[in-house]
Amino acid sequence: MNIIHKRFTFTFCLIMILIAPIHARAGSDPLASWNDGTAKQAIVAFVAAVTEKGGTDYMPPAERIVVFDNDGTLWSEKPAYFQLLFAIDRVKALAPQHPEWKTQQPFKAVLENDIKALAASGEKGLIQLVMASHAGMTTDEFEQIVTDWLATARHPKFKRPYTDLVFQPMLELLAHLRANGFKTFIVSGGGIEFMRPFTEKIYGIPPEQVIGSSIKTKFELRDGKPVLVRLPEIFFIDDKAGKPVGIQKFIGRRPIAAFGNSDGDLQMLQWTTAGKGKRFGLIVHHTDSKREWAYDCKSHVGRLSKALDQAQAEGWVVVDMKKDWKVIYPFEK
Amino acid sequence: MNIIHKRFTFTFCLIMILIAPIHARAGSDPLASWNDGTAKQAIVAFVAAVTEKGGTDYMPPAERIVVFDNDGTLWSEKPAYFQLLFAIDRVKALAPQHPEWKTQQPFKAVLENDIKALAASGEKGLIQLVMASHAGMTTDEFEQIVTDWLATARHPKFKRPYTDLVFQPMLELLAHLRANGFKTFIVSGGGIEFMRPFTEKIYGIPPEQVIGSSIKTKFELRDGKPVLVRLPEIFFIDDKAGKPVGIQKFIGRRPIAAFGNSDGDLQMLQWTTAGKGKRFGLIVHHTDSKREWAYDCKSHVGRLSKALDQAQAEGWVVVDMKKDWKVIYPFEK
Repeated sequence: MNIIHKRFTFTFCLIMILIAPIHARAGSDPLASWNDGTAKQAIVAFVAAVTEKGGTDYMPPAERIVVFDNDGTLWSEKPAYFQLLFAIDRVKALAPQHPEWKTQQPFKAVLENDIKALAASGEKGLIQLVMASHAGMTTDEFEQIVTDWLATARHPKFKRPYTDLVFQPMLELLAHLRANGFKTFIVSGGGIEFMRPFTEKIYGIPPEQVIGSSIKTKFELRDGKPVLVRLPEIFFIDDKAGKPVGIQKFIGRRPIAAFGNSDGDLQMLQWTTAGKGKRFGLIVHHTDSKREWAYDCKSHVGRLSKALDQAQAEGWVVVDMKKDWKVIYPFEK
Repeated sequence: MNIIHKRFTFTFCLIMILIAPIHARAGSDPLASWNDGTAKQAIVAFVAAVTEKGGTDYMPPAERIVVFDNDGTLWSEKPAYFQLLFAIDRVKALAPQHPEWKTQQPFKAVLENDIKALAASGEKGLIQLVMASHAGMTTDEFEQIVTDWLATARHPKFKRPYTDLVFQPMLELLAHLRANGFKTFIVSGGGIEFMRPFTEKIYGIPPEQVIGSSIKTKFELRDGKPVLVRLPEIFFIDDKAGKPVGIQKFIGRRPIAAFGNSDGDLQMLQWTTAGKGKRFGLIVHHTDSKREWAYDCKSHVGRLSKALDQAQAEGWVVVDMKKDWKVIYPFEK
């Protein structure tokens, strides 16, 4: 009895030891929020292909550069780009110091919540808003302004901090890629210094791996102390054909995978997937009007038309948000 | 006797095991090419201070951003910036396709090796040379041109590839910093796409950690294939007050240590060392006319005057090349 008991215990322990790693592996799907469909399978196959040593598609870690758009790809972009909502809040906060804004467009429209008049001010109005809210302070001051806004502002629909509205499946994808030796970059049309205060905490992407649009800055000594002052002048627009330009300027190496959601990402996807060796392109298609939003070719924000057509021609993966994602946001879990 | 022999063997082995790590450590000084002086001691003390967990000066790895100038700091810059010598070689190579250059300055001066006339063409002439040699091709083509030149061109004095003229003590410093969790960046007035083809191989610094001056590029589809074409138009000058601007733009985080050799690095050193917490500034002073060159405030290339004065006021470390460095170049070893 004693011997049988010992043998049983030994056998039991042996089995537990042997199956434990399998259990652990099966239980921790790195892409747990992705439904098992063609999109997930394509991602898994791509990662396996370029990381398999000795395989025909193997890429050394230094070459595993991957680029992600931000608005609409890593977090939501409705009812408007969150940075525009920041600019609007900022103009309202600064209004007491600018009595002239009460009668000046596009500021008047912002202060009166007149969306129609704001839209009518067009790109010129938008640039005026950005300059009034993003320039005139030092880079350190601007970082603080953005950090404070992110801590207090709430999304109009979800009543949550904007940084809650990141896509859980994309967070898992970022982590999965990094766990496999990939270096993850953001390449966004949004402001580089608007994103950097939160990308490391939210996405695990450090500031030096964030590329975006920017205004000029100027080095100055103020009372002997060096500062960088933000000027109301465009330096670089990191959108559409500007995205490959930004990638080459900031990274200097062609990525092997690109992830976007709109026509603003078309050229980035073209540039990335035209490189030699195994490449991967993916477009997030917003198809979930219930949990997030459903929009594509007719949307003013994040329009997706040409890039969707080309995705089919080029074999880029199109994520159907509604079908492919078990959850949208981390707070749903 | 047998027992004594055994005991002796055991004791001997024990001693060998105990002293082995000490031997290994003493034998592998990570800064072996640095003479033991104030400069080396200051470097060692800084690295120890910011990496000591629980210490008052501790910095987490993400904050251990360090920036290095290139020309005169990581490799030599005499008789002229190596990139200018590249531009001259390139103009000579392209001359058969440009018969008009025979009578046009500054090209005439280059083709006739007329240094005086070349100097007389000033900054305007220099920009013309750079544009003629650096623009008009795709980024992929330019990378190949630089790679081919580096493989075949020889330094006029040393008769060696330019990439042989890197400073052995600085290579050791880069490696020592990286081994301690620092992230090493180049911040150079030189061309970003001139440096990137060799920085990873020579310095262990990947292209995405190289910041420099650049011209504009344009995205185009040629027969359906995306290319980036280099345009004869300045995009960004990463020198003097441009260096902190470049650091903020490309890295987005203030470095904790900066290494330079000329007045072109002054603002980078100011910006870096004015940050909160432990900071480190270092200037390489070219004092070795025999093994390298000796120059400072009167040199046209790599002038060092204001930054040397400020080094004393700010407590930046000044490396005396002749006294502090056992060897200059790797090939001397």
